[in-house]
Amino acid sequence: MLTRIDHIGIACRDLDKTVEFYRATYGFEVFHSEVNEEQGVREAMLKINDTGDGGASYLQLLEPTRPDSTVAKWLEKNGEGVHHIAFGTADVDGDAEAIRGKGVRVLYDEPRIGSMGSRITFLHPKDCGGVLTELVTSAEPGAHEAH
Amino acid sequence: MLTRIDHIGIACRDLDKTVEFYRATYGFEVFHSEVNEEQGVREAMLKINDTGDGGASYLQLLEPTRPDSTVAKWLEKNGEGVHHIAFGTADVDGDAEAIRGKGVRVLYDEPRIGSMGSRITFLHPKDCGGVLTELVTSAEPGAHEAH
Repeated sequence: MLTRIDHIGIACRDLDKTVEFYRATYGFEVFHSEVNEEQGVREAMLKINDTGDGGASYLQLLEPTRPDSTVAKWLEKNGEGVHHIAFGTADVDGDAEAIRGKGVRVLYDEPRIGSMGSRITFLHPKDCGGVLTELVTSAEPGAHEAH
Repeated sequence: MLTRIDHIGIACRDLDKTVEFYRATYGFEVFHSEVNEEQGVREAMLKINDTGDGGASYLQLLEPTRPDSTVAKWLEKNGEGVHHIAFGTADVDGDAEAIRGKGVRVLYDEPRIGSMGSRITFLHPKDCGGVLTELVTSAEPGAHEAH
């Protein structure tokens, strides 16, 4: 069951500049940052609020690390902006299977590793009203609180 | 101070069909629906989770009611997808003024009426890394819980 908006993924060309925009404009601070070589992104997570399911909602700022990454191609086509949205669940495997059973294309056969050690998968935007949609299960209870 | 992701605004061509997609696929239910003639939209709010500041996070599904509305024009250019993101604050007037003072264009001189009697304004996407960004103050404490 999807129990929260886990994050909004925002694609940018210059991560440092975008982090500074969000800090200077709204006061949002970087909670966590990492490079995900598999996804080809350098990212910063800005924690916005806690959520009623014991998790949290973040902005995820994404800068491509190589020109053949999906985010780089997306930026080339669309320019900077909202790249995807993500819902949090305690069971990404079960939810992905159930959603696949409803005829929505799930992009990975098995969930992969996302931000902060989470397990993630994506749903095809053409099956989701144009919205690239991610499902996320956090690494462990309390992992949201750890750097 | 912005204390939550208030909602993600998603533009669609057929609200009823999109509501049914989110219900059938994820189990999300309509919390509130209304027509905003000023904005030229018919909308449904799907509540996803409570937030630590006493508010909640929603998906806001938006269908244009007339071809000259901003959402209709946006759909024509971009197709269906994420239209804007919104942050919740207790003081939309003060935050909008402070943000204007930092050189970010605020689209309304004064906040206008948004979903569920909230007061809202928008920031220019060109000043926000391609992200149309809304600021929202709920109508009153507890208004999130009312239909």
